[in-house]
Amino acid sequence: MSDTEARLAALEAEVRALRDHIEIAQVIARYGPLADSADTLDGGMATGALWAEDGVYDLGGGWEGQGPAGIAGLLDNDVHRALVRDGAAHIPSAPRIVLDGDRATALNYTRVYKHENGTFSVWRVSVNRWELARGDAGWKIVRRTNRLLDGNDEARGLLRTAREN
Amino acid sequence: MSDTEARLAALEAEVRALRDHIEIAQVIARYGPLADSADTLDGGMATGALWAEDGVYDLGGGWEGQGPAGIAGLLDNDVHRALVRDGAAHIPSAPRIVLDGDRATALNYTRVYKHENGTFSVWRVSVNRWELARGDAGWKIVRRTNRLLDGNDEARGLLRTAREN
Amino acid sequence: MSDTEARLAALEAEVRALRDHIEIAQVIARYGPLADSADTLDGGMATGALWAEDGVYDLGGGWEGQGPAGIAGLLDNDVHRALVRDGAAHIPSAPRIVLDGDRATALNYTRVYKHENGTFSVWRVSVNRWELARGDAGWKIVRRTNRLLDGNDEARGLLRTAREN
Repeated sequence: MSDTEARLAALEAEVRALRDHIEIAQVIARYGPLADSADTLDGGMATGALWAEDGVYDLGGGWEGQGPAGIAGLLDNDVHRALVRDGAAHIPSAPRIVLDGDRATALNYTRVYKHENGTFSVWRVSVNRWELARGDAGWKIVRRTNRLLDGNDEARGLLRTAREN
Repeated sequence: MSDTEARLAALEAEVRALRDHIEIAQVIARYGPLADSADTLDGGMATGALWAEDGVYDLGGGWEGQGPAGIAGLLDNDVHRALVRDGAAHIPSAPRIVLDGDRATALNYTRVYKHENGTFSVWRVSVNRWELARGDAGWKIVRRTNRLLDGNDEARGLLRTAREN
Repeated sequence: MSDTEARLAALEAEVRALRDHIEIAQVIARYGPLADSADTLDGGMATGALWAEDGVYDLGGGWEGQGPAGIAGLLDNDVHRALVRDGAAHIPSAPRIVLDGDRATALNYTRVYKHENGTFSVWRVSVNRWELARGDAGWKIVRRTNRLLDGNDEARGLLRTAREN
């Protein structure tokens, strides 16, 4: 193998990893705007399309959706429609991402801000662990586990995954 | 065209796209610190320099500035100077970015936190759509549209642009 | 030097800069989850490991730690353990990063959200200037300066570093 060939191959591998990193960050950046405008089933389906066919969104306490239609179903309720109607923001923090070939994990925070009576408040502050996989349609969410940062052990367990290199 | 030439050209195109993505994120990351230290016209001009010569910052409700000096003018008022003096933070979320050659769009949230009487509160939560263009001085903002997430339709319309691939 | 050699060298330099940018963002993204799960000295040491051997975390007002063990010591107190036990989130904003070979600076915001009596509040909003250096174990924090955005001049001075190109 020539030196040029080796350098090209190394660059291609590195560029692929950088692109994966950015594409995964983009999947996570899209969830909020999609959810915050999902006041119809169409909007819920656009949000659900971030997940793989058998992907899971696990919110704890029995709240869980599976597959794009299942995620859309999670958002198809009066509480969520009221958030969208009155103004709300599901805002992610920039994630830590660990790549492993065609799989990846990400760890970040999300906050839900609510607008009520002319003022904004912080309604929920959570930690999220995202498992993603690369498929024909790019990176999709295989599992998103969201836990409220209310002092519960499961949330701390997710946070502790940041100790892994 | 040799195989090496094709691989080099593909790498150069991909690296340029990755660099564009990061440079645009950097423009957006600079707005907050520049605005939050803009207690003089110099500070406002440094903030305005993120915009193109004919770039627009549209805040809704008739609040709009055009060009670097126009943006500086938006910040040159007692309300903004009080924010800077008492402590405030205009904090962006990590943006979704869509590149199209020398043009790009970005979508993100911003919050303004205010410090008053020793405590912090969330004053504004908004969605932003950024249109950017690459020029001789790098990426500049051509239009930033900011809408408060208070349940208005224009804000939801901006959020829905995340449905586009 | 052949054209191929020059293009390979340019790509390698650019890819290295992009990777540096992402790796530094990852260091910053790890601090929050590590600190928010640091209810033991082990957790504090995992957090401190983000710093270089002689790295400093300067919080102002005499709060300062040096080296991984010193940073761990900063977190080893009843106030921090109560935050972790009751639920809290140290959330960074996506940083502005300026690379200079094996050194770099970053500028961002952090917020600490606290969970108390079933609700969340914004406890602290700060600006951070990070100085980092590349060593054998990758990018490490050489100095993190954190100042509360309560209107003090030091905080505004940190924000103003965003005026530098």
